[in-house]
Amino acid sequence: MPDTPLSIGVDFGGTSVKFGVLYRSNIIDQAPPISTPDFDGPDALIEAMLRVIGDLRERHPRVEAVGVGVPGFVHFEKGIVHNLTNVPGWVAIPLKKKLSEATGLPVVVENDANCMAYAEWKRGAGRGLQHLVALTLGTGVGGGVVCNGKMVRGAQFGAGEVGQMSIDWQGRRGAYGNLGALEDYVGNNEIGADARQTYLDAGIERHLAECSPAALAKAAMGGDEIALAIWDSVAAKLATAIMNCCWLLNPQAIIIGGGVAKAGDILFNPLTAHLYAQLSAPFKEHLMILPARFGNEAGMVGAAALALEEAGVVLQP
Amino acid sequence: MPDTPLSIGVDFGGTSVKFGVLYRSNIIDQAPPISTPDFDGPDALIEAMLRVIGDLRERHPRVEAVGVGVPGFVHFEKGIVHNLTNVPGWVAIPLKKKLSEATGLPVVVENDANCMAYAEWKRGAGRGLQHLVALTLGTGVGGGVVCNGKMVRGAQFGAGEVGQMSIDWQGRRGAYGNLGALEDYVGNNEIGADARQTYLDAGIERHLAECSPAALAKAAMGGDEIALAIWDSVAAKLATAIMNCCWLLNPQAIIIGGGVAKAGDILFNPLTAHLYAQLSAPFKEHLMILPARFGNEAGMVGAAALALEEAGVVLQP
Repeated sequence: MPDTPLSIGVDFGGTSVKFGVLYRSNIIDQAPPISTPDFDGPDALIEAMLRVIGDLRERHPRVEAVGVGVPGFVHFEKGIVHNLTNVPGWVAIPLKKKLSEATGLPVVVENDANCMAYAEWKRGAGRGLQHLVALTLGTGVGGGVVCNGKMVRGAQFGAGEVGQMSIDWQGRRGAYGNLGALEDYVGNNEIGADARQTYLDAGIERHLAECSPAALAKAAMGGDEIALAIWDSVAAKLATAIMNCCWLLNPQAIIIGGGVAKAGDILFNPLTAHLYAQLSAPFKEHLMILPARFGNEAGMVGAAALALEEAGVVLQP
Repeated sequence: MPDTPLSIGVDFGGTSVKFGVLYRSNIIDQAPPISTPDFDGPDALIEAMLRVIGDLRERHPRVEAVGVGVPGFVHFEKGIVHNLTNVPGWVAIPLKKKLSEATGLPVVVENDANCMAYAEWKRGAGRGLQHLVALTLGTGVGGGVVCNGKMVRGAQFGAGEVGQMSIDWQGRRGAYGNLGALEDYVGNNEIGADARQTYLDAGIERHLAECSPAALAKAAMGGDEIALAIWDSVAAKLATAIMNCCWLLNPQAIIIGGGVAKAGDILFNPLTAHLYAQLSAPFKEHLMILPARFGNEAGMVGAAALALEEAGVVLQP
């Protein structure tokens, strides 16, 4: 292997913390994940993280930086975790400082959806682009924005919350009191609950398990008219939020990843149709609607790539 | 007057073309407007514009650049007008090239809402900010975006179309087939028509003229409950689109200008309330909701300021 710098990407989730060693876009090594809820507060978990990072560095002495993607709100410049969704106790934790002091390496801490967007922009479907919006569709809907060849983090590093954008000014009331938030319609669980109701309305009883995005995609591929209509409705709602990103930012590409995106053409075909029916020529003529390159590893890849860039080690594309 | 460079700002509208000479943020001279529909096609109008520009330069030899704000779609870098709303014949017109060749000066051609946003950012309510969204509320709703200290123009220079952003995925069908476009609810005429209907529903017959934003603001200030409810509804719809800008971009400020914004507190108070009820802490804690500094002159000021900057003449703030 040539003498190219490596970096460690850490994907910090509510269930587990995963570690990978990145060489360009490839994860060349991984450590066994550690279980997030097993640790009694941030200090114990940070100690465990440092042990794993230490093990990986012994195996890979050329590691030059560490990036951590976290499921929550971060002060990117200071590397302070303000708070994490689903991980109690993580309030005002100076994670960057703690990790960099202990390792002697440059460390970045970033929101996980921004890491995914960064991975797609620098190493994935959006390579070389100047303007893009990346979305990840799962239990929640996350996103990241690139304008003028730079990540858009905004005034308090909160930008990219596509899942909170409203598609209905009188819609469902969301987590922050906001009405009509996209993720309250196209999150995994909401798709399932709405689908179950749609089947019920048609006189068909379905278990929720049969209404998962995966099950609905399979049904739609088998020609189930109701499943097709459900995906069309999901696509119409998603198209509204994406359209809003397009009118506001006129990006070159929309990149879509996450579990729900695995429906493939079942989602992308009606999504493209709804977008093309509702955008004017300059906004759609060159617009690319792209599936994400990375899957579950997106956060790890993005965190690792971002860490190298922030450390001043910029790879040739 | 100190020896500071001047620039000419041209506000190209569907009714008239207005010309001003700008010294810093001040219009120090204006030429009589020329009537847009009086000219038979772009060539004749461009000749007339050049005559006025020539007159102004004779009076102000220190003019170093010309900026033109146009009501439509522009290739900013090339200075080509793709097409103009309400001005027939302006299709694929290389306005920058024609004006700069004839005057020997650097020329910029920019969308008028972007000029307004630029004026507010560089000379108005948004001075010194890195992240903002500016809106102008009139017959239509226009906008401009600044992220990371740069104007966001997007892939085809179309960014900032806040008026086309949807507030209802099943809403009114707009000019481009798009459903629920903001300006189809809070444009001047739509406010009037909806207000008239609201009064009718309450058994009160009102002329449309009594339902203008100005008349409704006066009525609301006089304590008219229906008028207050109408403004609350306008504010809720506007808040939805602004909230969407906030979730996506986390700006430091939202700057609001145009005729409808003249309602002042009658609009800004419920608008702020709806925004604060629907944004999480980091998005609203430091968010400024600011009335625009400039009125009708915003486009002229922005075009003139942008022209100087593009010509490399950057003023101290």
